[in-house]
Amino acid sequence: MNSKLRKEHRLKAFVTGAAGFIGSNLVDRLLADGNVVVGFDNFSTGRRDFLQSALSNPNFNLIKGDTLNFDELMQAMRSCDFVFHLAANADVRFGPDHPERDLQQNTVATFNVLEAMRKSAIDRIVFSSTGSVYGEATIIPTPEDLPMPIQTSLYGASKLAGEAMIQAYAESYGFKTWTFRFVGVLGERYTHGHVVDFYRQLSADPRHLKVLGNGTQRKSYIYVQDCIEGILHAINASSEKVNIFNLGTDSFCTVKDCIKWITEELALQPVISFGTEDRGWIGDNPFIYLDTNKIRALGWSAKLTIEESIKRTVRYLKTDSDVVTSKK
Amino acid sequence: MNSKLRKEHRLKAFVTGAAGFIGSNLVDRLLADGNVVVGFDNFSTGRRDFLQSALSNPNFNLIKGDTLNFDELMQAMRSCDFVFHLAANADVRFGPDHPERDLQQNTVATFNVLEAMRKSAIDRIVFSSTGSVYGEATIIPTPEDLPMPIQTSLYGASKLAGEAMIQAYAESYGFKTWTFRFVGVLGERYTHGHVVDFYRQLSADPRHLKVLGNGTQRKSYIYVQDCIEGILHAINASSEKVNIFNLGTDSFCTVKDCIKWITEELALQPVISFGTEDRGWIGDNPFIYLDTNKIRALGWSAKLTIEESIKRTVRYLKTDSDVVTSKK
Repeated sequence: MNSKLRKEHRLKAFVTGAAGFIGSNLVDRLLADGNVVVGFDNFSTGRRDFLQSALSNPNFNLIKGDTLNFDELMQAMRSCDFVFHLAANADVRFGPDHPERDLQQNTVATFNVLEAMRKSAIDRIVFSSTGSVYGEATIIPTPEDLPMPIQTSLYGASKLAGEAMIQAYAESYGFKTWTFRFVGVLGERYTHGHVVDFYRQLSADPRHLKVLGNGTQRKSYIYVQDCIEGILHAINASSEKVNIFNLGTDSFCTVKDCIKWITEELALQPVISFGTEDRGWIGDNPFIYLDTNKIRALGWSAKLTIEESIKRTVRYLKTDSDVVTSKK
Repeated sequence: MNSKLRKEHRLKAFVTGAAGFIGSNLVDRLLADGNVVVGFDNFSTGRRDFLQSALSNPNFNLIKGDTLNFDELMQAMRSCDFVFHLAANADVRFGPDHPERDLQQNTVATFNVLEAMRKSAIDRIVFSSTGSVYGEATIIPTPEDLPMPIQTSLYGASKLAGEAMIQAYAESYGFKTWTFRFVGVLGERYTHGHVVDFYRQLSADPRHLKVLGNGTQRKSYIYVQDCIEGILHAINASSEKVNIFNLGTDSFCTVKDCIKWITEELALQPVISFGTEDRGWIGDNPFIYLDTNKIRALGWSAKLTIEESIKRTVRYLKTDSDVVTSKK
């Protein structure tokens, strides 16, 4: 996206999950590009300090509210013309402990966003989906048009439901929609996932690290700024009613690689105990690697490698004392 | 399914939508096979007279309740060991007029059924899905493992969400699940869809018939008893965690064919006025024809042709005066 927009090309962007990891980085970028931004967050996991810089910008307005409260949501978005719907329950691993959470926070909340848009005559939406919608993919690297997959997590199912409703809104009401299926996202303000789990363990005890699964799980990651650049690039370069893109780097690593890079960055040599299973938990996907040819054909590509993303994340974690003490 | 079951092989079946078209036919069949059945219906579109025969059977218990009322649902199913979840909003055409209906009655209701099962330790479910989950299919006849489709209706999206949650429950909690993607179902107690729309028009004015779309839309249909036989055959012949089958006849017809057979059966020769579009409404699919090789490989096949199904449906409609006067 051009960083010097003429006024008539500015977005009036509504960002749900604005105080979250990806959301707050997106807000900063949209503001840096000269757009007007309304941030919306219920602060269940979002952090006000992530928006410290944004809050000093006159083009930014932060509204505390919940996507499950339709009136709050509709009131908050009414001056906007483009929605970035990032708010979600992103907890894959503990989904089976509270199945209603994915339904409500991902599926029903996305419906509310779509309905509020329809009633406010806003017709452009970016949706943060996930490679988890591919379940245990039958083709790797996995393209967007994989044979209809079997869902293996409540999280993946709830995001697929969100994607499906967005497509139906595009057909029924003329919405223009961009859905991005992410691999794991890393970088500044990352607070949730196995890199932070490992970091917390090593903060508490630098000599030992306990790993769920046998360490052979293969995963792909993307750096948060590459992810945001990919989103903004794609919304300018594609204009179907329904645009769907995988978003990831063109490589993968094992959990063992990941541990190696984390411990290198921390200059630690812990004793590592692995599990015996080839996956860490029910619904854990032993191999995530998305085919990103579709978005790369538009001229975008990830700049950071997975190793650089992980090391940069660890450097960030060292500066964020809240991450170690927080249980979120 | 064997019609002479030993007692230990009897199902204690819980049927949602038991007073509906397919539901009431399924109830009759399950009872005829010697199973115990609890029927559950909110009677929003279901009809008590469809269960007249079942109600005289001591193995049948009818409970009025709503799948959106979790406590009612859970209380009603507690003695059962197998769920047939047929209750749904099946109105594709008017979906865009009330988008919340598909979300609530299909997606959220299916979640409630799954949660009530989990909390009651019931782990087998049949789910009535639809060929609409294929959107405008890119492969025809359409196999179950089509490349991930784009949804074109709120109905299809809501059913896909139901399928996805069922798959996640299979993985997360060890459910055994059978999902059937139907073409249009016809036969006795059919009360909803374009055959009845045409029948109503011709009852009001036998000389004129107005058709949405240009009549070239191609659709496939299945006779309700063939559909039920397919379901019962598949649950005995397949035992994966997740079993998904298309269910239809091995042919299709045009709307014009359909009109020809209806008017033949009624011995009418109306003046027919067609629309100009190749589809009847937003989200109408101009060509539905499912590949049924997967279920036919298990030894099932449809006995009635589409022509026979349509003519049999018209003969039924002549006996059901409620259909003509009802707006449902």
